[in-house]
Amino acid sequence: MPYVNIKITKEGATPEQKAQLIQGATQLLVDVLGKNPKTTVVVIDEVDTDNWGIGGETVTTLRKRN
Amino acid sequence: MPYVNIKITKEGATPEQKAQLIQGATQLLVDVLGKNPKTTVVVIDEVDTDNWGIGGETVTTLRKRN
Amino acid sequence: MPYVNIKITKEGATPEQKAQLIQGATQLLVDVLGKNPKTTVVVIDEVDTDNWGIGGETVTTLRKRN
Amino acid sequence: MPYVNIKITKEGATPEQKAQLIQGATQLLVDVLGKNPKTTVVVIDEVDTDNWGIGGETVTTLRKRN
Amino acid sequence: MPYVNIKITKEGATPEQKAQLIQGATQLLVDVLGKNPKTTVVVIDEVDTDNWGIGGETVTTLRKRN
Amino acid sequence: MPYVNIKITKEGATPEQKAQLIQGATQLLVDVLGKNPKTTVVVIDEVDTDNWGIGGETVTTLRKRN
Repeated sequence: MPYVNIKITKEGATPEQKAQLIQGATQLLVDVLGKNPKTTVVVIDEVDTDNWGIGGETVTTLRKRN
Repeated sequence: MPYVNIKITKEGATPEQKAQLIQGATQLLVDVLGKNPKTTVVVIDEVDTDNWGIGGETVTTLRKRN
Repeated sequence: MPYVNIKITKEGATPEQKAQLIQGATQLLVDVLGKNPKTTVVVIDEVDTDNWGIGGETVTTLRKRN
Repeated sequence: MPYVNIKITKEGATPEQKAQLIQGATQLLVDVLGKNPKTTVVVIDEVDTDNWGIGGETVTTLRKRN
Repeated sequence: MPYVNIKITKEGATPEQKAQLIQGATQLLVDVLGKNPKTTVVVIDEVDTDNWGIGGETVTTLRKRN
Repeated sequence: MPYVNIKITKEGATPEQKAQLIQGATQLLVDVLGKNPKTTVVVIDEVDTDNWGIGGETVTTLRKRN
């Protein structure tokens, strides 16, 4: 019954990688807490780099500098 | 003053259906708790089927099998 | 498979009222979008009035004035 | 280490405005609670006006009337 | 930089189990997407069984029946 | 109409500090985007240090080391 929300920047995660995140997060809840995988929900949000900030700056700005 | 967030898979909900979800969720808070509808906020997130998992699989995969 | 999150101020909602919110929100998704109620998840967050703001003020302050 | 999520309707906020929201929210946590800006995360969600409701109506409907 | 939110019912998860969830979710983002663990944030919400619903019923009710 | 959610660790923020966060976040939306403060909602979540992780460790563990 757990609900997991994963937020990442939208920078090209493939459907296969997203399927791996969903599989891995579901398994983690099974392994650690014995939760039922059938009702475990995982939602991935991919956020534009203009809309994600860390250290007071957008990721768009950080990526340009590096 | 309540805040309601509804997450559904992006599979063609129409503007009319979304308006019904907003109307219905707002009314529910009025009916059950006597909340003021004027300041009740409802936000609907439509999530790509690649980004939604249940039972360890993406909805994209589930839809293909059914 | 929908996920609904309802945030309200912590001001004495009873277990019966919370059960009604859960029942009502689940039914809304069935009625409007034909969603499967078995995998519909509803989570209610009750937030301290010191931690909820509207119009730039905490609900604690608003309640004192009214 | 704080996490801030700002949800606004998608009505043309520019990258500069979003950078200002991120900078301002990060600074607010520094000023009020002395938090470390380096690990402060801000995520902005821009929500379609069809998907945002207040007073039981979508913002799309509200905007048409005003 | 990812942000992960794990919601579970409040039914006695220990500090050690919560540390394992945090460690595991962080490692998952490293393994699948090569994310930097240093800025990966994981927040666990433990929700009262009266406040969590599935299938239109609270978990409190479900637990009584089983 | 914006909605702002601020998550911080539960480490003694006072009601006055939380009121300042609410006032400041609301003003930020007014200043940057001209939003109406009357319908701007701010919700603060205070999270136990056992339930917050960064760098794969709980904040409880981090605080002990520093």
